[in-house]
Amino acid sequence: MIQGYDPRTGKPAGDPVAETTDDAVDRIALAAAAAAGPWPGISRADRARALAAVADALDARAADLVEVADTETALGVPRLTGEVARTTGQLRLFGEVLADGGYLDVIVSPAGEGVPGLSRIKRAIGPVAVFAASNFPFAFSVAGGDTASALAAGCPVVVKAHEGHPRTSVLTGQIVADALAGAGAPAGTFAVVHGVPAGIRLLRHPAISAAGFTGSTRGGLALARICAERPVPIPFFGELGSVNPVIILPGAAAARPAAIAAGYAASLTLGAGQFCTNPGLLFIPDGDDDLQAAIAEAVSATVGGPMLSERIHDSYQEAVADLADSASVEPLAAGRPREGPWAATPQVFRTGLADFAAGLPALAQERFGPAGLVITYQSADDLPAVLAELGGNLTGGIHADEGSSGDMSAAGQLAAVFARAVGRVIFNGWPTGVAVTWAQHHGGPWPATTAPGYTSVGATAIRRWLIPVVYQDFPPALLPQALRDAGGQAAQGAAS
Amino acid sequence: MIQGYDPRTGKPAGDPVAETTDDAVDRIALAAAAAAGPWPGISRADRARALAAVADALDARAADLVEVADTETALGVPRLTGEVARTTGQLRLFGEVLADGGYLDVIVSPAGEGVPGLSRIKRAIGPVAVFAASNFPFAFSVAGGDTASALAAGCPVVVKAHEGHPRTSVLTGQIVADALAGAGAPAGTFAVVHGVPAGIRLLRHPAISAAGFTGSTRGGLALARICAERPVPIPFFGELGSVNPVIILPGAAAARPAAIAAGYAASLTLGAGQFCTNPGLLFIPDGDDDLQAAIAEAVSATVGGPMLSERIHDSYQEAVADLADSASVEPLAAGRPREGPWAATPQVFRTGLADFAAGLPALAQERFGPAGLVITYQSADDLPAVLAELGGNLTGGIHADEGSSGDMSAAGQLAAVFARAVGRVIFNGWPTGVAVTWAQHHGGPWPATTAPGYTSVGATAIRRWLIPVVYQDFPPALLPQALRDAGGQAAQGAAS
Repeated sequence: MIQGYDPRTGKPAGDPVAETTDDAVDRIALAAAAAAGPWPGISRADRARALAAVADALDARAADLVEVADTETALGVPRLTGEVARTTGQLRLFGEVLADGGYLDVIVSPAGEGVPGLSRIKRAIGPVAVFAASNFPFAFSVAGGDTASALAAGCPVVVKAHEGHPRTSVLTGQIVADALAGAGAPAGTFAVVHGVPAGIRLLRHPAISAAGFTGSTRGGLALARICAERPVPIPFFGELGSVNPVIILPGAAAARPAAIAAGYAASLTLGAGQFCTNPGLLFIPDGDDDLQAAIAEAVSATVGGPMLSERIHDSYQEAVADLADSASVEPLAAGRPREGPWAATPQVFRTGLADFAAGLPALAQERFGPAGLVITYQSADDLPAVLAELGGNLTGGIHADEGSSGDMSAAGQLAAVFARAVGRVIFNGWPTGVAVTWAQHHGGPWPATTAPGYTSVGATAIRRWLIPVVYQDFPPALLPQALRDAGGQAAQGAAS
Repeated sequence: MIQGYDPRTGKPAGDPVAETTDDAVDRIALAAAAAAGPWPGISRADRARALAAVADALDARAADLVEVADTETALGVPRLTGEVARTTGQLRLFGEVLADGGYLDVIVSPAGEGVPGLSRIKRAIGPVAVFAASNFPFAFSVAGGDTASALAAGCPVVVKAHEGHPRTSVLTGQIVADALAGAGAPAGTFAVVHGVPAGIRLLRHPAISAAGFTGSTRGGLALARICAERPVPIPFFGELGSVNPVIILPGAAAARPAAIAAGYAASLTLGAGQFCTNPGLLFIPDGDDDLQAAIAEAVSATVGGPMLSERIHDSYQEAVADLADSASVEPLAAGRPREGPWAATPQVFRTGLADFAAGLPALAQERFGPAGLVITYQSADDLPAVLAELGGNLTGGIHADEGSSGDMSAAGQLAAVFARAVGRVIFNGWPTGVAVTWAQHHGGPWPATTAPGYTSVGATAIRRWLIPVVYQDFPPALLPQALRDAGGQAAQGAAS
C-alpha cells in the first residue's frame, strides 16, 4: 500500500492507495498498445477537443484537487490553485499545437530526374510511460506536461504516480480518464499505475515505446539504464538535477542591492526550494558589502515551508550539513523553519571563487531545498573558466546594469559561456518560474537532462514523442491526410 | 599499422597506415574542443563557402580518390565515381541548408503580462566523433554525410577512419583538411584518426559531445554502450542493421513478373549486396509460379562482386550457411561469384509465411551481402501480423498494380503497418539508393537505428548535432545575430 503523509504533521493523510499488481500493469500496457493505432488515428481537431475536455474537467474539480493535494504536499492553496491553472493551460496549449500542425514537420521533396519523390511526416512513437515528479503534484504529475504533450502527439500514456501524493494522483487520474472517455478516446489511451515495482515493470514492458521523467539524478539514471538495457531500447527523456548558477555583475550589485537580495531570497525559498530551477549558486562581486548585507537580511527574513516528504527533508539536512562542513565555506545567513517535523530552514553559505573552484564538483551538487551558496569573485573575467567546470544546467542567470558598459560587455561574454552549458539563459531575472509558451526550453546538457536536444516544458515538448517516416513515390490516395494536404508543395524551405 | 587489402586478390593494397597514438588522439580532441567556439562563430555563409571548398577540392581530385578507393574496396570505377559526386553533392546540400537557415529552428515568444520574453535557437552541440562505414568509402566515410552535416551545424569533426580503406581515408582527410584550412576554418575543425583503439579513446574523450556511426549492429551497440557509460554520457546516432522487407502484391506479381524479378535481383546484388538497404526479405504470393520462375532466372544471371574484406566475406558465408540449414528453408536460385578469394555468390532461398514466422527472429536477421529470402504468402491479410514481429527497419517496400483495387487496398493497410515499423515506405520501388534530398529520412525504429527520431541522410541529418538554447528577457544587442534578425516576429506558427 502507498500511504501519503501530511508534511505539516508527518502523519498519514487519508487512506493508502493500493500498489498496481504485475497483472494489472501488463493489462494496462497491452491496452495502451491497442490504443496506439486508433488514438493517433483520431483527427487532430478531435484530439485537441479531448485535451480541452480534460482541461475543463480538471478546472471544474480544481477546488477538490487542491484540497487533497494540499494535505499530501503542504504546498498551500494559492500555489496549488495556480498549478492546476498552469496544468490546464498546458493541456490547452497543446490543443493550439495540434491546430497549428507545424509539429508534424512535413517536408516534401518532389520527384526529379532519377530522384524519387519523398514526403516526410512525423508520427506518434507509441505508448509513453510518464514518471511523475514529487514537487509539482499537477504540472509535472498525472496530468502534467509529459502527459499533455504525449497525448497530443497521439501517444497513449501510462503514468507512474509519485508516492508523495497518491490520492491526488488517483483523483487526477479518474478525472482525466473520464474526460478522455467522454471525448471519445479509445480504451487504453490513458492509465495510472502506483508503486515503484509497477513503474519498473511498465518501463520494461515491450508495449512501451518511450518514457518521460522529472526527478532526482539518481532515480533518473536508474530508469535511463533500464530503458537502455531493454531487449528493444527506448528513448528516455529525463529531466534531472540542476543548480542554476546566477551571476550578479558589479554594476547591478552596486545599483540595486536590495532588489537583487529580495529576488534571490524569494526564488531560493519558493516552494521550500523544491524546484529544479532553484538558484543554488550565486556569484557576486567580492567586497560588495552592501549586497552581502542585503542578502543576509533578506534570507534572515525567510521562512522555510514543510518539505514534501521525510526523505526529502532528511536529504536536505544532510546536504546542508555537508556544505557547512566544506573547507572554506562559511555561513552567511539563515531563515527560520515553519512549524512541523519536515520544515526546512533556508540557509545560505559563502565562499570565494578560488575555493569554490577547488571544491568542485562537490560544491556544485544540487541540494534540493532552500540552500544557497554565494561565491564572491574578484573579476568577472575569472568567471568563464569556473563556469566551464560546472556540469550542464537547466538555467544560467546574469544580472547586469544596462547602463554600465562594463556589465554589458561582461554579460555578453557570460551569455556566450552559458549558451553552451545551460538550456535557458536569463537576463535580470530569476530561474524559478518556467513559462509554458511556444519558445520555452526546459532542458539542458547533462546532467540537467538525459536527452539534451529536448524540452519537457513548452510547445516543442511534443517533439519527444514523434519520429519521422517518409513515403517514397506514393500515390496521393495512400498518403496520410496531412501529407495529402501538403501534396502540391515542396516545403523544403520551412523544413530543416 | 593498418593495412588495406585489394578485395580482388586478397593481397595488400599499398603501404599500411599508422594507427593514431593515444597522445595524438588527445591532442586532436583538445584541438577540436578549441575549435568548438570559433567554428560555429563563423557566419553561416562562410561555413557554406568552406563546405563548397571541400566539395570542389574533392571533385578536383575525384580520379585520384576513385583510383585508391578501387584498390581498397573493388567497388569499381563507375560506382565510386558516382559516390564521390554524391559526397560532394551532399556537402553542397548542407551549404543550401545553411543558406536556408530554417535548421536554426528559431522560435520567439514575446513577453506578456507576467510572462517573460523567450527567444529560442539551436546551437552546435560541440565536437563530433564520426565512425566511418566500410561500404561507402566516400558517402559514409571521412567526408560523408555525418561529417558534412556536423561541420554545417558548426561542430568540429574527428573521423575515425574505417580499417577497410585506410589510404582512401588518408587522402580524403588531407583534401578535406587542406580545403577547410584554405577556407579559413580554425585549426582543430577537422581531423582523422586511425585504428579501433584510437576510435574508442576518442569516444571516451571529454571533449567529444556526440557521435555518429554507420555499421554493424554489434559494433554500433558496443560504441553506444561506451557513450552511455561515460562520466558525461553523449548522444550516439548509430545506423545499424536492416533487412528491408519488400512485399509484392498479387496484382503486381501477375502484371509484371519479369520487371519485378529484374529489379529485385539488381537491388539484391548491387555493390555485392553490401548496403544497409539491401532487400533481405521478399514476400510474394504463394502459387505465383511466373514470378518465382522469373526471380530464379534473374538471380541465376547475377554475378557477385568481391566483398569488402575477408571478414565480411566469411560472415556472409556463415550467414548463408545458417540460412540454408534452417528448417523449411530451401534454395530458390543462385548467381555466380566473380573471380577472386572474397567474391560473393548471390543466393536466394524460399520459405512459406508460417514457417518464416516460426523461424523468427533468426530468419529476419541481417545477412550483409547478396542473400535473399523469398517468403510466399497465401493472403496479404496474413502479412501485417508477421510484419509486426519484425524489428525496426530502415525501409519497407510495397509493389502493387495501381489498377487493382485489391492491391491498392492491401497497399494502404500495409503502408500503415510499415509506417510504424520503418523509416521509409517505398511504393513500387527498391530500397537501395537513398536520395540525398530535403525530405529524406534514413533511419528507423530499433535496431535500424539507435536514435529513431533522426536521419543520417538528407537535410535534416544536421539536426543530430544541434541542441536548443533559449534567451529570457535579453536585450537584443546581446542576442546571437540570427535571433536579432528574428527579434520582431513571434515565429510560433512555424515552430513546434
